[in-house]
Amino acid sequence: MTSIAKIDHFVSVEDSSNEQVLLLLKRASAFKQGVLWKSPKKQIFAANLFFENSTRTHNSFHIAERKLGMDVLEFDVQTSSLQKGETLYDTVLTLSALGVDVVVIRSSVERYWDELLQSPRIACHIVNGGDGSGEHPSQCLLDLMTIQEEFGDFSGLKVAIVGDLVHSRVARSNMQMLTRFGAEVYFSGPKEWHHKEFDHYGWFLPLDELVSKIDVLMMLRVQHERHDGSQSFSKEEYHQAYGLTEKRAKRLPDKAIIMHPAPVNRDVEIANSLVESAKSRIVEQMRNGVYARMAILEAVMSGWEKYYL
Amino acid sequence: MTSIAKIDHFVSVEDSSNEQVLLLLKRASAFKQGVLWKSPKKQIFAANLFFENSTRTHNSFHIAERKLGMDVLEFDVQTSSLQKGETLYDTVLTLSALGVDVVVIRSSVERYWDELLQSPRIACHIVNGGDGSGEHPSQCLLDLMTIQEEFGDFSGLKVAIVGDLVHSRVARSNMQMLTRFGAEVYFSGPKEWHHKEFDHYGWFLPLDELVSKIDVLMMLRVQHERHDGSQSFSKEEYHQAYGLTEKRAKRLPDKAIIMHPAPVNRDVEIANSLVESAKSRIVEQMRNGVYARMAILEAVMSGWEKYYL
Amino acid sequence: MTSIAKIDHFVSVEDSSNEQVLLLLKRASAFKQGVLWKSPKKQIFAANLFFENSTRTHNSFHIAERKLGMDVLEFDVQTSSLQKGETLYDTVLTLSALGVDVVVIRSSVERYWDELLQSPRIACHIVNGGDGSGEHPSQCLLDLMTIQEEFGDFSGLKVAIVGDLVHSRVARSNMQMLTRFGAEVYFSGPKEWHHKEFDHYGWFLPLDELVSKIDVLMMLRVQHERHDGSQSFSKEEYHQAYGLTEKRAKRLPDKAIIMHPAPVNRDVEIANSLVESAKSRIVEQMRNGVYARMAILEAVMSGWEKYYL
Repeated sequence: MTSIAKIDHFVSVEDSSNEQVLLLLKRASAFKQGVLWKSPKKQIFAANLFFENSTRTHNSFHIAERKLGMDVLEFDVQTSSLQKGETLYDTVLTLSALGVDVVVIRSSVERYWDELLQSPRIACHIVNGGDGSGEHPSQCLLDLMTIQEEFGDFSGLKVAIVGDLVHSRVARSNMQMLTRFGAEVYFSGPKEWHHKEFDHYGWFLPLDELVSKIDVLMMLRVQHERHDGSQSFSKEEYHQAYGLTEKRAKRLPDKAIIMHPAPVNRDVEIANSLVESAKSRIVEQMRNGVYARMAILEAVMSGWEKYYL
Repeated sequence: MTSIAKIDHFVSVEDSSNEQVLLLLKRASAFKQGVLWKSPKKQIFAANLFFENSTRTHNSFHIAERKLGMDVLEFDVQTSSLQKGETLYDTVLTLSALGVDVVVIRSSVERYWDELLQSPRIACHIVNGGDGSGEHPSQCLLDLMTIQEEFGDFSGLKVAIVGDLVHSRVARSNMQMLTRFGAEVYFSGPKEWHHKEFDHYGWFLPLDELVSKIDVLMMLRVQHERHDGSQSFSKEEYHQAYGLTEKRAKRLPDKAIIMHPAPVNRDVEIANSLVESAKSRIVEQMRNGVYARMAILEAVMSGWEKYYL
Repeated sequence: MTSIAKIDHFVSVEDSSNEQVLLLLKRASAFKQGVLWKSPKKQIFAANLFFENSTRTHNSFHIAERKLGMDVLEFDVQTSSLQKGETLYDTVLTLSALGVDVVVIRSSVERYWDELLQSPRIACHIVNGGDGSGEHPSQCLLDLMTIQEEFGDFSGLKVAIVGDLVHSRVARSNMQMLTRFGAEVYFSGPKEWHHKEFDHYGWFLPLDELVSKIDVLMMLRVQHERHDGSQSFSKEEYHQAYGLTEKRAKRLPDKAIIMHPAPVNRDVEIANSLVESAKSRIVEQMRNGVYARMAILEAVMSGWEKYYL
């Protein structure tokens, strides 16, 4: 039995060790089974600081915090001194001074946390709720949790990641982590949304070739809000060329599952009728997100000294 | 002693049975007297999802939820994925997946809840905080509570509903429920804001004829925000023609009470000096709103098996 | 041992007696040392109603309320009936009716509370979180707390208040209170931001003359948001003429401290490198703000009968 390194912040899953990720998954699963947090006997304040719109990530962090018995401060960007030009650094410095223990931040700025983690004056634990085109580590964790829950192990699993690969902040983390844990990764979708650096992780193939052979079909959201509208296909064209149509779904293996980080553009990435179908784990992903985030919050707050692999 | 049907959602008072409404009133009254909720021994999450501006309804649901010991998620429409085009259905599906037990929704869309209640995947209890020109059932309940508190019984009570009848989402519920419980309903106000379907419930008469004979004077808000500004009267003209002036108030019977769902346009529907006068129950209506909403939340959360008429 | 007058509201520190202020400081200090509130055995609702942007004041009131075990209602001005034209008076009347015990208000309207305190129907305790160009009494209290913590006593202390004196809502309170407690006050900054009424409290001198002789250097924020942009100096010019440059900081006495209500315009009022330096108490001011506000909330909620000077 060996203990593993404590983490103070959780900003990147890619920089986490396999042991750390597996322990987070184990704790998330325990929380799902009803295990309670042995929290420190003091009032803990969590602040959520979201600079980008969010339903799932924001609200599931809130619920995770409350399930852990934390006090939640919903920081309102629009009515804060950020509007007077105060920086993120000075805002988090303030929250730290006010006694906030953990701050969850979503920002459009990649690696916004660098300056926060370097400050000797900021005592808050920082949790990354998504940074620009960087990472979305809690999403990666809940995706891994959902796959692990289904198949027990990642080794040899065939996972296709399909769609807006370059704009997704979870696709790159997922391809890295899945590969590290022994899965085989494939890609599909529009060529212009693929990048040659992904070749390192797996083949880029037409969806029709992949669909009958995979265990996990991970569809990515077409992020209209991050595009300039210049792409050359309509929603219907996208659906037919790169989406999970009802016809393609029929060719999926019996045990295959469908995943999507949501919000789903129904009838674009996935046919409307399939979103809540038996093979879909989209609702389960959202459910697991609460427990994955509980595990993350526990990890940064109480360390891992007492847990063992 | 007979039990009455459990309700899972509370979206319409008009579709509720008299027994259900009377039981809600009884429980609201009990809460006001300090009775505590025998809550389930688990953490309950309530989410408030308001698409329209609100002070009373929104905050009194929040306070009712906290008085029942629930955890409250204030869903921020403006910073949610609704801004990326996510639908109400997918938003509530998400909240359900995250473990939210009850969702209070105010929307401008009439009967927005139809698709929510039909979904086999949405496990939340839905409470209607107002739907377009549809219903505002918690407001109706608090109005009935305020009248019952004053007069003990509805039978034979003379109630005048005055003003913006067609745009009000509580007037129609009130005329129906009051009639069902044996009250006599009268109407007054501008002719263009009356509709012949209301004739089924009572006479439409000038306020000067009604004012000396009624027990309850229920003034409705002139909803500037729902009008196009084309009405032909000024605020002062409205007040003189259809409002409760000081002169008219002097002719009210001794035991008569003045009601208004608020916010009041002072000196339009009601003379400023009368809003907080001895006959006014406007502040009491707001107070009762908390207890009426506690009764609603209790009903959808714990069912009514253990309570009897 | 004599008791001092109970306060029901805390809207002005200038109208408070020295005894009241000293008792608030004593209680704030006790809270900082971990003393717990002997709260009434009932659920207490606090509502925060902020019409102006705020990070420190708003969030530290929220945290203070939660540390006292209160339920917090974050009143959202933008989605309330204030948007339908409802007045502040009717909004607070509503919150009172809903059972809110204490309302913290920040407004751009000077003495907004006058009509609230006169109402026989509003039962809430009112706490001023800043009123226009009026007062910001909780800021004054935390400033006094920070100075007292450092020097023990105010008597004979030399305090320079520097910068935007006329637009600051804390400068005037600070000069009054510091003078009342026996400190010597000096002023500096642009001449056009000084006012002859301040001559009553102390000399107006160039910063270079003051900097080597003072105990407390209290820099004020240049409030870009309250100016029309017509001032004749750039940020760099302001910094060189009136700001705390690194060069000036070297001339400060050993035990001198630097204060600022924040948010700081780094390199304008204070050189960036000095904001978190050893002499700076800016982070400590933010920390103390939570405890000062706990003392204020305790005072209005439970009175002071049981505490003695």
